[in-house]
Amino acid sequence: MASIPVYRASTTAPVNIAVVKYWGKRDARLNLPTNSSLSVTLSQADLRTLTTASCSDSFADGDSLTLNGEPTDVSGARIQACFWELRARRAKLEATDPLLPRLSTMALRIVSENNFPTAAGLASSAAGFAALVRAVADLYCLPDSPELLSIVARRGSGSACRSLMGGYVAWRAGDREDGLDSLAEMIAPASHWPEMRALILVVSAAKKGVSSTAGMQQTVATSGLFTQRISTVASANMAAMEQAVKARDFDEFAKVTMMESNSFHACCLDTYPPIFYLNDVSRAAIRAVEAINAAAGTTVAAYTFDAGPNCVVYYVEKDASTVVGTFSDVLGHVDGWKEGCEGGASTIKLDEGMAHVLRDGVSRVIMTAVGEGPAPSDEHLVAEDGQRLCR
Amino acid sequence: MASIPVYRASTTAPVNIAVVKYWGKRDARLNLPTNSSLSVTLSQADLRTLTTASCSDSFADGDSLTLNGEPTDVSGARIQACFWELRARRAKLEATDPLLPRLSTMALRIVSENNFPTAAGLASSAAGFAALVRAVADLYCLPDSPELLSIVARRGSGSACRSLMGGYVAWRAGDREDGLDSLAEMIAPASHWPEMRALILVVSAAKKGVSSTAGMQQTVATSGLFTQRISTVASANMAAMEQAVKARDFDEFAKVTMMESNSFHACCLDTYPPIFYLNDVSRAAIRAVEAINAAAGTTVAAYTFDAGPNCVVYYVEKDASTVVGTFSDVLGHVDGWKEGCEGGASTIKLDEGMAHVLRDGVSRVIMTAVGEGPAPSDEHLVAEDGQRLCR
Repeated sequence: MASIPVYRASTTAPVNIAVVKYWGKRDARLNLPTNSSLSVTLSQADLRTLTTASCSDSFADGDSLTLNGEPTDVSGARIQACFWELRARRAKLEATDPLLPRLSTMALRIVSENNFPTAAGLASSAAGFAALVRAVADLYCLPDSPELLSIVARRGSGSACRSLMGGYVAWRAGDREDGLDSLAEMIAPASHWPEMRALILVVSAAKKGVSSTAGMQQTVATSGLFTQRISTVASANMAAMEQAVKARDFDEFAKVTMMESNSFHACCLDTYPPIFYLNDVSRAAIRAVEAINAAAGTTVAAYTFDAGPNCVVYYVEKDASTVVGTFSDVLGHVDGWKEGCEGGASTIKLDEGMAHVLRDGVSRVIMTAVGEGPAPSDEHLVAEDGQRLCR
Repeated sequence: MASIPVYRASTTAPVNIAVVKYWGKRDARLNLPTNSSLSVTLSQADLRTLTTASCSDSFADGDSLTLNGEPTDVSGARIQACFWELRARRAKLEATDPLLPRLSTMALRIVSENNFPTAAGLASSAAGFAALVRAVADLYCLPDSPELLSIVARRGSGSACRSLMGGYVAWRAGDREDGLDSLAEMIAPASHWPEMRALILVVSAAKKGVSSTAGMQQTVATSGLFTQRISTVASANMAAMEQAVKARDFDEFAKVTMMESNSFHACCLDTYPPIFYLNDVSRAAIRAVEAINAAAGTTVAAYTFDAGPNCVVYYVEKDASTVVGTFSDVLGHVDGWKEGCEGGASTIKLDEGMAHVLRDGVSRVIMTAVGEGPAPSDEHLVAEDGQRLCR
């Protein structure tokens, strides 16, 4: 007796960290943003999600998702929107070719794992939804470009659309009500400016803050300053940042990155009740970056913070000993350092108060770099017979 | 031989804490603000400056100022502007009456003392300049109203103009280039809403932050969001706050007070490089006020922060046991509590994490209330013979 076939496809997808921030939706159901944003895709050697999408008529338990070994609810509107969009595209293919297997009618079994600890507090939803959409699209053999798939990933999590490409990625806000022009596009590949590096200072937060989904809509509803961010500030920063990336102008890249982070967190603070993501450790990291730039006599490092206290420090490879060396000098005891980051002569001595706060509050670091977009993987988290694989 | 006469006058002046904030100058020399502001004058029973202004032909050492027992430089442009304005007004009087002693030509000897520890980190320049201007005006027998004198005090320190009156005081930004319409006016006396109380949580800051004079001009120069504060936010809050004070509407007073504080600190954070006055203790105080209001089921407390981490909590007398009781429950060990603030049944149990941060970071409290403006004093810090008196 022939066994019922199991179809599967696996992909990896990267984390991205925005340098022009996404904060605020003009349409909460479609995840349409109030402003365009821009991110750097980070290397999957250090941070990635691996996802296997499979489907089979033998999967009797309906659609399912396993995240880091834990069964996860798939009834939410966001993930349902992704499934629906992807099935609709597959169904269209099937309608044109009667020989294609009817994958769109089968239950999906999806298994996904991150290669970084959840405890790191890094927003994994971007990589997660990008990998899910990419894996199902590959499973379904969809011909859609990454740009078109980014519209689907956006429904899952706004910033996920930017994780469908490598390098330097813009998410165009668009202005259509149906959101079909609200999509990601690569403005430069990783190879355009491959020297870009990121040092992530993972800050042990006592408590999880306000979720970004809830927080950004409170900002839209209550911040008196936010209208200015939307009407003027973010668009000017988008234009300046695209220019800086194209010109590989780190000085301008750094300045816009830092001002954008500040503008975003200022709007959080101007929310009522106020939202705080930065804590005293985050502030010490900002002061440390300022001290490094002051001592270097030029801009060699830029800080940015997402919806949490972790500091992402961007720098370029040639300044590694100054930037990484200085931080490893005070944080040498935590995990995550790679070889050859001792710094040496160009290490800057941080003020002892600042160093003390960093030592007390940073629990680990992650050293990474600009990287590529999702890629097919032959490592599968669902076996040929459909069994979920533990690793 | 007749001794050379010494003329003197003494006054006290209060501290004020703004509920619509002053941040940003449109003219740095004249201390003309970018927006109108509004403050509550605090009781001099708890916080006041006592200043004696004296002058005599026998004072051979030129103008001098002694602050809290320390000789203080008087060559700065701000204090010189005050002296010059006051002397000009006195000279005008002398020109019309040949019998008046020529005080405008004599050296000024000014001695000033605060009744609160400098270590409290409370901005004392407002009370200090208000007392200086009021004392010299009294010494010179100037007929000018407090409004007109507020123009002089403004030259010394912007917010000083609001300390020339009691109760609820507006500083109208004005639009004249010479600043003659940029002055303070009382919008309601203390007696209009005498139940207003303030609990000040003095936070031990590791280090003094950016001075407000330097900071506010960095904000004007670099913050992309600040234009919105000036064009729209602050003026709307001024109108709402005046209405709230007139109607004795604590709910609205509190909401505008908290949103104003947040808007101001958001603009500080949006400054480049960013300015931080709030620290983790300040944030715990904000969360504590939110928790108290949530537990009370109505708004009984409002936080506001000036250019430092200290939290000023406004409340009205009937809610003292809820507001003060809750804070004294976790901060009972520090100095500054008055009798009868144990709270009892209406005390709210704060989350232990929050309580821990407050206990660690609050070094003392000050309990005070809305109060009156400057008043003449017969306590003199310069003796009849011109000697400075130590106390």
